[in-house]
Amino acid sequence: MKKKHKLARGVAVVGAGMSKFGMFKDKDSKDLFAEAFREMLASIDKGFDPNDIEALYLGNFTNDFFIHQGHWGPIISDLIGLAPKPATRTEGACASSALAFREGVFAIASGFYDIVLVGGVEEMSKRTTEEVAEGLALATVPYEGRVGFTFPGVFGALATAYFHKYGANREHLMNVTIKSHSNASLNPKAQFPFSIKDMMTMKTETAKKKGKPVPHWDDEKAFLRDPGANPVVAWPMHLYDCCPISDGGACMLLVAEEIAKNFTDNPLYIVGIGQGSGKGLHAAADLTTMEATKNAADEAYGMSGLKPEDIQFSEVHDCFSIAELIHIEDLGFFKPGQGYKAVEEGLTRRDGPMPINTSGGLKCKGHPVGATGIGQLFEVWKQLRGEAGERQIPNKDLRIGAAHNLGGTGGTCTFTILERR
Amino acid sequence: MKKKHKLARGVAVVGAGMSKFGMFKDKDSKDLFAEAFREMLASIDKGFDPNDIEALYLGNFTNDFFIHQGHWGPIISDLIGLAPKPATRTEGACASSALAFREGVFAIASGFYDIVLVGGVEEMSKRTTEEVAEGLALATVPYEGRVGFTFPGVFGALATAYFHKYGANREHLMNVTIKSHSNASLNPKAQFPFSIKDMMTMKTETAKKKGKPVPHWDDEKAFLRDPGANPVVAWPMHLYDCCPISDGGACMLLVAEEIAKNFTDNPLYIVGIGQGSGKGLHAAADLTTMEATKNAADEAYGMSGLKPEDIQFSEVHDCFSIAELIHIEDLGFFKPGQGYKAVEEGLTRRDGPMPINTSGGLKCKGHPVGATGIGQLFEVWKQLRGEAGERQIPNKDLRIGAAHNLGGTGGTCTFTILERR
Repeated sequence: MKKKHKLARGVAVVGAGMSKFGMFKDKDSKDLFAEAFREMLASIDKGFDPNDIEALYLGNFTNDFFIHQGHWGPIISDLIGLAPKPATRTEGACASSALAFREGVFAIASGFYDIVLVGGVEEMSKRTTEEVAEGLALATVPYEGRVGFTFPGVFGALATAYFHKYGANREHLMNVTIKSHSNASLNPKAQFPFSIKDMMTMKTETAKKKGKPVPHWDDEKAFLRDPGANPVVAWPMHLYDCCPISDGGACMLLVAEEIAKNFTDNPLYIVGIGQGSGKGLHAAADLTTMEATKNAADEAYGMSGLKPEDIQFSEVHDCFSIAELIHIEDLGFFKPGQGYKAVEEGLTRRDGPMPINTSGGLKCKGHPVGATGIGQLFEVWKQLRGEAGERQIPNKDLRIGAAHNLGGTGGTCTFTILERR
Repeated sequence: MKKKHKLARGVAVVGAGMSKFGMFKDKDSKDLFAEAFREMLASIDKGFDPNDIEALYLGNFTNDFFIHQGHWGPIISDLIGLAPKPATRTEGACASSALAFREGVFAIASGFYDIVLVGGVEEMSKRTTEEVAEGLALATVPYEGRVGFTFPGVFGALATAYFHKYGANREHLMNVTIKSHSNASLNPKAQFPFSIKDMMTMKTETAKKKGKPVPHWDDEKAFLRDPGANPVVAWPMHLYDCCPISDGGACMLLVAEEIAKNFTDNPLYIVGIGQGSGKGLHAAADLTTMEATKNAADEAYGMSGLKPEDIQFSEVHDCFSIAELIHIEDLGFFKPGQGYKAVEEGLTRRDGPMPINTSGGLKCKGHPVGATGIGQLFEVWKQLRGEAGERQIPNKDLRIGAAHNLGGTGGTCTFTILERR
């Protein structure tokens, strides 16, 4: 019997904001965070004085070595007028801001603070693809990065293991990609707000304009099979299996449950926060599952008293298409080896029984690593409040949504469950 | 009237360990953390199963860019057998592990965990002095580092401002250095366990052995005035005003107050935890004070109900000699402009009324940046439990001690008060 974690004091989300994700060479981390912060302020229905914020937690991974500026807690604190109040940076590679969210929850649940801002930011596009690949590999464990693994290679190895164990193949990964792009086409903040059909049309139009041979594909899978349109990166990971390099910021305002209604009539309550750590591929008995995700799920389900079947929709960390399959199994949404079939059958579509990554996911919404964790929770916020616009999950009374964030090759995982009451 | 912060649940320290600090080119971060972890385990009087640790918070600043390995939470989690349980890295430049300590306190006070390991580690000596100076400058705000400031220059500017405002001079800084070295000579874990007199003797002996002209200094200040022995770094900061480049690790076991006596009959209780952020020198109205330290002090005094005069001794962040003077004033131990006189009068000596940096401080104990915050609390632990050996503060019933940790140029500050009951 697992220990059931409890918080001494409830915590709620009362405001949320997210910048557009994309490659913005003319914007820096402060611009990106400010964009999210302004939207967060505007989202608080009953108004709010930002001077009431008592502390900041900020997730960031790469700014130290990509833009040669560290110590981002006080920089963002200064930006939003928080200084001299505390600002703490958390880092768990691509899960950095989900950790910030969790520390914000603890800081309020501890009784020390009542109103805490949590956020994340990342500024990646000023580096070349090669520099980003090498830099992000700092998040692998020493036995991986130092033997030459970068992330597409790592997830290529996981995909190969998954194929071998369960009989899946590249065609199944394409189902993930097609679904993500379909969702992203309805998300104006996505880096690639295009369905695969949109991409096919754009490529055709471009060829026509340039007077080049006009390509034709019978359907989306034909497009994804075409090595010209979708070249291999690290087999079986092709271009459309991989998330992009992104810039972006996101933030949320957390408050003690008992004062949540002072900010909005529609707060979201934090009913489960789980986290786990993992050893890396060299020590994994099975490459088709991640122990850190399972620990995060155990903690979050244990705290909430909920079961996987109670979660109505979830964002999961699809840095690569294969990751989505592995996570939806580890989180208990589908049985081991059944994830790829569930996607094939449309069960994870926006209008299916278990929508996954309605935002478009990291693949299409973008993956500014330090902003991603709270960016995922931003989608949960939007869906649970019925504010997701064209991509709103249809025909459901949404009450419980979740987000799963991964750092490294399974080194850090979080799972967070939000409820609308 | 300031808000009085409270924790919903008390938290205690029941074990502590610290590696020797120094330059260890043959040791990596895992070696250094393991050294601290083993001592922590041995320090728990009533025994303890490390499998009972529920989560880890780890402070580190430079490993990403100095040794090209990031994402240290899961690496240390794996090292100590914690995986798949959670591991979170905190970063606030040189205050990184004081932040880890604080998050560990919140995680337990929130009710979520009962037993949490907090620690810090840093591996700096594999880089040249120039690389370290440039790398650490990532912790300055953009308006400082990018105009060419490195840390000796920043603190040189603070010293100049202090001299100008209060009429102090270099001779007063020397009093800080002489005291720190005197304390460090009694600390076997210090990087420089030598008094200034020891240094004078060693230099004399070395000259004799090498057949070189044998230097003579009338007293310690004569040695510190000699530009051959104590060259200028960034005026008025000379070599003996500056902390060294160091490697080291430190950790502490935190538990819920109600179970503390299961681990030891002599736990220390966390009665004050304060933190603040600052904007940097460009925005400071007065360079002789730090708003982040004052906010940290307000929070910690407010929570504890204690006043500065209730603190019996303190470690403070003396990355440079001038920093010690500024901090002992900002923390309220001495009035503004009186710190340098207090040191001159011997009030901050080990046998004085307000001992400061009995460990030898960062200047002499060493400053492996991510390990420093918990390394300071390790000294408080040793002194409060009467285990500080030759450097034990004499003739006092020690009940309340504190530690002040600084990151950057005042960007992040913490102040932590521990009590023995």
